[in-house]
This record gives sequence, structure tokens and C-alpha cells, in this order.
Amino acid sequence: MPERDFIARHLVPLATAPAARGLADDAAVWAPPLGRDLVFTHDVLACGIHYLAGDPPSDIAWKLLAVNLSDLAAMGATPAGVLLGLGMSAAEDAAWRETFTRGLGRALAAFDVALWGGDTVSGLDRAVLGLTAIGHVAPGGALSRRGACIGDAIWVSGTIGDAGIGLTMARGTIPAAKPLLDRFRRPMPRLALGQALVGVATACMDVSDGLLIDADRLGRASRARLDIDVAAVPVADGPWTTGLDDRLARVTAGDDYELLFTTPADADVPALAARARTPVTRIGTVVAGAGVRALCDGRDVTPDRLGWEHG
Amino acid sequence: MPERDFIARHLVPLATAPAARGLADDAAVWAPPLGRDLVFTHDVLACGIHYLAGDPPSDIAWKLLAVNLSDLAAMGATPAGVLLGLGMSAAEDAAWRETFTRGLGRALAAFDVALWGGDTVSGLDRAVLGLTAIGHVAPGGALSRRGACIGDAIWVSGTIGDAGIGLTMARGTIPAAKPLLDRFRRPMPRLALGQALVGVATACMDVSDGLLIDADRLGRASRARLDIDVAAVPVADGPWTTGLDDRLARVTAGDDYELLFTTPADADVPALAARARTPVTRIGTVVAGAGVRALCDGRDVTPDRLGWEHG
Repeated sequence: MPERDFIARHLVPLATAPAARGLADDAAVWAPPLGRDLVFTHDVLACGIHYLAGDPPSDIAWKLLAVNLSDLAAMGATPAGVLLGLGMSAAEDAAWRETFTRGLGRALAAFDVALWGGDTVSGLDRAVLGLTAIGHVAPGGALSRRGACIGDAIWVSGTIGDAGIGLTMARGTIPAAKPLLDRFRRPMPRLALGQALVGVATACMDVSDGLLIDADRLGRASRARLDIDVAAVPVADGPWTTGLDDRLARVTAGDDYELLFTTPADADVPALAARARTPVTRIGTVVAGAGVRALCDGRDVTPDRLGWEHG
Repeated sequence: MPERDFIARHLVPLATAPAARGLADDAAVWAPPLGRDLVFTHDVLACGIHYLAGDPPSDIAWKLLAVNLSDLAAMGATPAGVLLGLGMSAAEDAAWRETFTRGLGRALAAFDVALWGGDTVSGLDRAVLGLTAIGHVAPGGALSRRGACIGDAIWVSGTIGDAGIGLTMARGTIPAAKPLLDRFRRPMPRLALGQALVGVATACMDVSDGLLIDADRLGRASRARLDIDVAAVPVADGPWTTGLDDRLARVTAGDDYELLFTTPADADVPALAARARTPVTRIGTVVAGAGVRALCDGRDVTPDRLGWEHG
């Protein structure tokens, strides 16, 4: 199918927002909400690197949107629109494209986000899928990684390491369990929590490469150290996590897309999280130093490999 | 070089705008100019499809920025910032990356545009380079392809078909002449002209796939026909264009990145274009019908192939 037909048949029906202009012009036009800061992110998913060639196309579409919205969540932003950059190979045939765009439509609807525009390229050797997400936040309210203070409490949303188990399942190494497979394939960006943290969290980021490596980055950005009690880190129910080695595997696995954040020790985070309908757990304290330290019963158990290093 | 080092060494120094936050957070944050509409575009250049593997990396960076800014120009917008999605293979080695990012820095400076953020991926089979450009325009002022009216004058900026000759030179088929090679490798988005056309042009788009095919699209979007006098279309000086066949080759070649626009017949376009320091030429008239017709001495010479069809 020529790109023009693919766009007309599968993408134009998703581009219902006025900003998209029916994908008929050279660019999208959007009147931003008055008095808000705008937040922009762009993440790329490549076949064979960020997802497996056999993953369901609708799940790939979900993940492409979700990982970008997770970046907006980490800034406390409310998403508004996205632009796509779809690079595809012969493997992304008509059936793949149809399932992908149908899944994308469902994902956009689930998060109330509009498709504004983008570009498609065929004839690549493998799929390389880019997405730009645009959101907004109260002026000056955007969260950052830099504000953690000594004495602050360290919190994390949801459970950690599930997607790492899900990836092992997707590879067929261990028997599949759908909830954990879904944590790998269909992450849930913590948008409500991120928005609730504006004005409360001193620092925030999303956990994408592993809790410890991301905590290390937040600690370095804040010129402080995050002391994390690995026994306090919430993990999935089940037989997956029995001893310390399992726990260290959980906190160094990627693709969680939970929020890691710090607050003053006396902030009523449980109440705020309940309003955002998001489970949160306190996992440590910010101390003097730099980076991260993993503790178990007060003992330093920091592993050499903290998580997923790019490149 | 790990991606982290590439980003720290080559991209962070380019991300000097406050919105970029030193590339240290999950997303960029920008306070948009009050009372302006925002304009968004995202175009992808793939190695071997949109440029040749041997093209100078600094020219590839220029083209990646320029083709996106050309979309903003077509909407009458002023560019503000960009996000990158750099997918690279082993062929994009340390030397390539350094030359690319140095060229990108020069291109950003030339157009006064800020690098706000993005993503990098290594380990692909070929480079796939995406860029999102964000600009702004007076509220309600964005140009579109839809407003051409019967009786309007049709105009084009610059000269047409140069990049097509440049591509033939880049492939080594004919001896190279730098001005035409540059038209292929280092297009100049017509930003000043686009901005000057706000409130004047009834329809506008950039010419990227060939003058005739793009005129056909503008005509269909406006539910009118663009009658273009191919003898009036401005072409490069030199031995390239002697007869009608040459002219038809020029008006069906891609990568011009000139603006094609329509105005009321009595608009003083030459004065406006002079203020924007951009040469423009009247090439025809909007009539009843749909699409495009190429005329020569009043005779219909419309070729079967109007330009570059994607996919």
C-alpha cells in the first residue's frame, strides 16, 4: 500500500482534532491553553531493541504512546497531542499497519490525547517508531530531577521489576503470565500521580532503565544520594521475588514506567496518591553524597550494574 | 561511544536554551509567547531514501532541520525549538556523529532555533533521523492549502528543479556544480516569505515532491485547478533547461523546498517578496476544476507522472 493510501485510510481517521487539520496541511496548528507552560518529549522505539518483532502491533502502538506520556507524567504535565514518525520495513505489512493504527487509536482515546501529525517512511530494514508528545503544566510547576534535598523521603509508584519479568516471558524463557507480560508490553504512564505531585515533589522522574540507575541519575542531578531500602521496594505478588538476588534483579530491570520522586519528609503523600488512585511506597531517604546506594538491613548491597545502559 | 557520552559531549552543548534544561530532565519545558498559535511538524530522513550514504554529515544535519523548517514556513510560522530522534547504525561512527552535530549546531544558529530535547538509538541497520519543529504564528493566521479561489494568481519562490539536477550530480551521473548540489543538500526554507504571506496568501504549501504534484495537492485541497504555465516557471541559469522536456523534468523533480502559494490577483506580491528578500514569480492562475494542469503556449502538456510519490 502506498504511504498516501496508508495515511488516508488509517491515520486521517485518527486525526480528528482541529489541530491536525485532517493531516491535509504541512503542519499542525494548536492554540495552547492560556497561561500554561508547555512540555515536549520525543522517544523512539526500534524493533529488536525496544520491543520484539513478534510483539502484537497494537501493544507496540500502546507502548510507543505510553513511554512518551510517562515522560510527561514525570514532569507533572497533562498531555494534549502527539506527532508520529513511523519508519517501517516490509515486515510491517498491511495487516501489521492496520492492527498498529487501530491499537494506536485505542491508546490515544484511553489517554485523551490527539494525533496532530507526523511523517511515514517505508522501505527501511526494520521498524523505527518515533513519537513526540506535547503537554502542559502550571507555569513554573514542571517537576525536575534536580530538587531532592537531604532528609527528603523517597517514593516510588506501583511495583518495580514487573516489566523485566514480562520481558523474560515474552522471550519464552519462562512461562507467561499475562499481568506481567502486560507490564512489559502495555505500561501505564502515571499521569494522574505526576499532576498531583506538582508543588509537592522536590524531584521526580520516570523509571525506565531500572530503579537503581534512574535513582542514581536523580541523585547526581540533585547533588545528593538516594539511600534505597531494597526490602521496602514494592514488587509483584508471586513466586518471582524470594531472596536478595531476586530483589536486586527487580531494582535493576528496565521498562517499569513508574514514577520515582522525593518529597519533604512530612508531606502527606499517601493522601495525595489516594486522590490520584495510584499506589505509592516510601523506599528510602535522601542523604548527603552523590548517586544511589542500595541497602538491605542497613547493609550496602549496591550491585555493580545498576540497570540498563544505553549504547 | 555509549549514547550517554555522545549526548553529553555533542548534544548537551547545543541545548543551551532554558527550555532544554540541559537535557537533564525527562522532557523540555517552554513558556510559549502569549497570544500565538503554535505550529508543529515532524519529518523523517532515512539514509538511502532521502539522502545518500556518502553525503556530508553536516549537510544531512542541515537538511534534516531545513525540511522541517520549510513546513513551518509553509504555514507562515516563526520557528522556536526542535526535538531530535536520532536512530543510528554502525556506519554513523564517532567521526560522523561529531561532524553531524557540529553541522546541526551551525544550522540551528543560522535559523535561530533552539535544541530542546529528543532521543538517540544506536544499533540500527541504517540511519533514520527524525526531527520535530515547533513554531508560532498570529492567532488564526496559519496558512493552509485549502483557500485558493478561482481567479487567484499562482506564485512560486526561487527556482524550481535545481535540487533534482543536484541529486543527479550527487549520484555522479553528470559533473557536479556546487550551487545545484547545495540546492539538493542544503535547502533554504523560505521562512521570511512564509511569515510575510500571513494575511495575504489564500493558500500555501512547500514544494517537496515536485511542483506539479504539490500543485495538484493544493488544487484538490482547495477544490480548484491550478493552471501553470511551465514556460513561466523560474529555473536555474545554465545549460540544464533548453526545451519542453527539460522544463517538465524540472517541474516534476523533488526537494525544492520553495513556497507555492496563491493570492488575490491584485495583491502586490512583488513588494511583499522584496521586503522578505525572496524572489517570487507568477506562474499561473487558479481556475474551476480540480488538481493541476501544465500549459505551454496555451497547450496542455501535463505529464502522466507529476512528481515523487511516496511508498
